[in-house]
Amino acid sequence: MSIALEPVQASLGLVREELDRRWPDGRDRLDAMCRHALLPSGKLLRPLLLLESAAAVGGDRARVVPAALAVEYLHGASLVHDDVIDGDRLRRGRDSVMARFGVDDAIVAGDALFMASVTALAECGRRGVPATAVVTALRLFGEAGIRLCRGQVEESAQQGALEGGLPAYLAMADGKTGALFRAACVAGVVLGGGSPADQAAADSYARHLGIAFQMYDDLLPYLRESATTGKAAGSDLANRRPTFPVLVASELAPGRRGEIAAILHSGSAGALARMSELLHDIGAIEHARRRAEAEADRAAGALAGFPASESTAFLGSVAELVVDRER
Amino acid sequence: MSIALEPVQASLGLVREELDRRWPDGRDRLDAMCRHALLPSGKLLRPLLLLESAAAVGGDRARVVPAALAVEYLHGASLVHDDVIDGDRLRRGRDSVMARFGVDDAIVAGDALFMASVTALAECGRRGVPATAVVTALRLFGEAGIRLCRGQVEESAQQGALEGGLPAYLAMADGKTGALFRAACVAGVVLGGGSPADQAAADSYARHLGIAFQMYDDLLPYLRESATTGKAAGSDLANRRPTFPVLVASELAPGRRGEIAAILHSGSAGALARMSELLHDIGAIEHARRRAEAEADRAAGALAGFPASESTAFLGSVAELVVDRER
Repeated sequence: MSIALEPVQASLGLVREELDRRWPDGRDRLDAMCRHALLPSGKLLRPLLLLESAAAVGGDRARVVPAALAVEYLHGASLVHDDVIDGDRLRRGRDSVMARFGVDDAIVAGDALFMASVTALAECGRRGVPATAVVTALRLFGEAGIRLCRGQVEESAQQGALEGGLPAYLAMADGKTGALFRAACVAGVVLGGGSPADQAAADSYARHLGIAFQMYDDLLPYLRESATTGKAAGSDLANRRPTFPVLVASELAPGRRGEIAAILHSGSAGALARMSELLHDIGAIEHARRRAEAEADRAAGALAGFPASESTAFLGSVAELVVDRER
Repeated sequence: MSIALEPVQASLGLVREELDRRWPDGRDRLDAMCRHALLPSGKLLRPLLLLESAAAVGGDRARVVPAALAVEYLHGASLVHDDVIDGDRLRRGRDSVMARFGVDDAIVAGDALFMASVTALAECGRRGVPATAVVTALRLFGEAGIRLCRGQVEESAQQGALEGGLPAYLAMADGKTGALFRAACVAGVVLGGGSPADQAAADSYARHLGIAFQMYDDLLPYLRESATTGKAAGSDLANRRPTFPVLVASELAPGRRGEIAAILHSGSAGALARMSELLHDIGAIEHARRRAEAEADRAAGALAGFPASESTAFLGSVAELVVDRER
């Protein structure tokens, strides 16, 4: 995503510098864990969504930077705990917090990031953002966090089960991924002084973006090598998660559900290759990709009401990029 | 504590009813876990501290009830994660969330309670509390949460080590227990409309109260049976934690540190009985109790600036009760 991020290079720099400044090296173990979770950073998609949503409605990025950090902390906290739950030892191509610091302290590090998101958000009040807007953003963040948790519990409950099908998947994706995207965009609009109509548009944009993102993320293990995603490919499969392309295949070829379920339940080392072959054979990969792209188009369409600006253009390009159309 | 809580029976009822209403039975698994973590409730000490601190400076309890729930959620979240980390299967005399729902979902349940505290706090803004006060309380809660996490990481780091001695213990206790007590009392004063001097007095009260509470909590396994504390006695010892009476003994009888360390490191089933005998022999139990009582006296002394009221009397009685002087 490096090329398309050029218009928002300044925002990206702002966020990276603040992360580096706030989580210095070598203070204590808790800070070291939080730093490890946050830096070197990922794409910083959620903080950028918040900053550019604020700017899209005329808000001042410098005032809302702490809220942008807050959403990255929330995201980081959930990744740290996800890795504990999934037993994932790799994150962004290196040790996960759990692998480096152990399970017990990783749980506490995630908790600290949840709380750091709260203090960061509160800071906006000292930067000239009206306190009422901060309280609204607070509510949005809290609700998003709870939806994120609910999505995760639902995901665990669906483990190994194809029965819920795509409707259950969409609800889960909206919680697991959509919740934070929506909180980032809507809070950005609120903190940036946008109208209720702007908030509704941002919410629709982020909801479709989140679903497109999750759909495409599920597709990645079938499209690329592990080194690129920085996560053990097939981790979802090893955890017996019925991911998007698997559910699409199950819908496209009801007669082959037995085969699909057998691979899903095997949890064996060769499962990814076998599943991949089956999904390509059914045509599920292409179909799943087209559905992800349709969600991305809906996201982009929701931006119609925002005035043309670099920020609006960025939000539009994100919708293209989450389904990787540039590559 | 039932007798001394009579003056605040109404507050207690308010909190219990709200908990029951907000976490109904049988909605979904996440709610079931949160309900299990919160109900039947414990002593609800932290929410009562918040409500009565607000009332002590003339605030309206009904307006700040959501903040009182928020502090209980924070406390509940940290207990759920503590039990995961310590492998404690008992909490309040029954299954811990981890024991009932498994480690993975217990991690998510704790996360959800952290986020529920955020949405609950935000609610105060809709009950007539000024948004600026809500944002201040938000910051206090966030900072308390981070200090709580830092205290926990420090506690793990001290595992099995007597070297840090009492200073390290006091810092840990101030983080682990004091942080939430302080956030509850100071946020109560802020949300109730108290002055900066009121906030400082509430902070001093809560800091000493937290230390007294943690000191006495550490003493409990040496004073009572497991059934009373609702937690496996000797859990701290099994986790090789140098608790308060152990550190006091180590300070009182430097010549017996070898013996103390040997029991601390053994982690065996008979360790509690042997440690208890040694501590009584050294006189550490009585000494530790007196030190806890001195902290409680300092807490009570900090209330001098508050006008006499039922709420101030309650706060004073809590300082007596945390070191169990009524029994």
